[in-house]
Amino acid sequence: MSAKTAPQTIVANKTTQDQLRAFIERIERLEEEKKSLSQDIGDVYREATSNGYDKKIMRKLIALRKKEPAQIQEEKDLLDIYMQAVGM
Amino acid sequence: MSAKTAPQTIVANKTTQDQLRAFIERIERLEEEKKSLSQDIGDVYREATSNGYDKKIMRKLIALRKKEPAQIQEEKDLLDIYMQAVGM
Repeated sequence: MSAKTAPQTIVANKTTQDQLRAFIERIERLEEEKKSLSQDIGDVYREATSNGYDKKIMRKLIALRKKEPAQIQEEKDLLDIYMQAVGM
Repeated sequence: MSAKTAPQTIVANKTTQDQLRAFIERIERLEEEKKSLSQDIGDVYREATSNGYDKKIMRKLIALRKKEPAQIQEEKDLLDIYMQAVGM
């Protein structure tokens, strides 16, 4: 595979230098957008917290909403069994 | 702090139920956008890889571009000293 065999030579000319720079800058821009979204998410959690909602429980709720009801019930049942098994 | 003392009662009426739902849905939308950006980043890395660039080295380069030149040099020097210390 030529893509794998010439890693040292690929950055030797202007065109490939520009190409590499373009890839890097695209990734950096996308990473910036991701960071900005993470901050937005933090802001929503802060707003919710200041309205009396619990962040940890909200996270659990969001995780649960990704699952099927049957899966939730199965995990709940299994957790109950395990808790009983260790005397909780 | 009333925000902390009434966690059980806060979801008891329609208005607060709607409010909680709105917070949850805002977070879910933002998380979706973040996921989509992660996929876009993956796509750029795949495109770069197919053009012969090494993903691991690109990641290192992006991390280095966030640092000051003096910091890069300092870490490089320290790493050299540590490598010598363990006989590398």
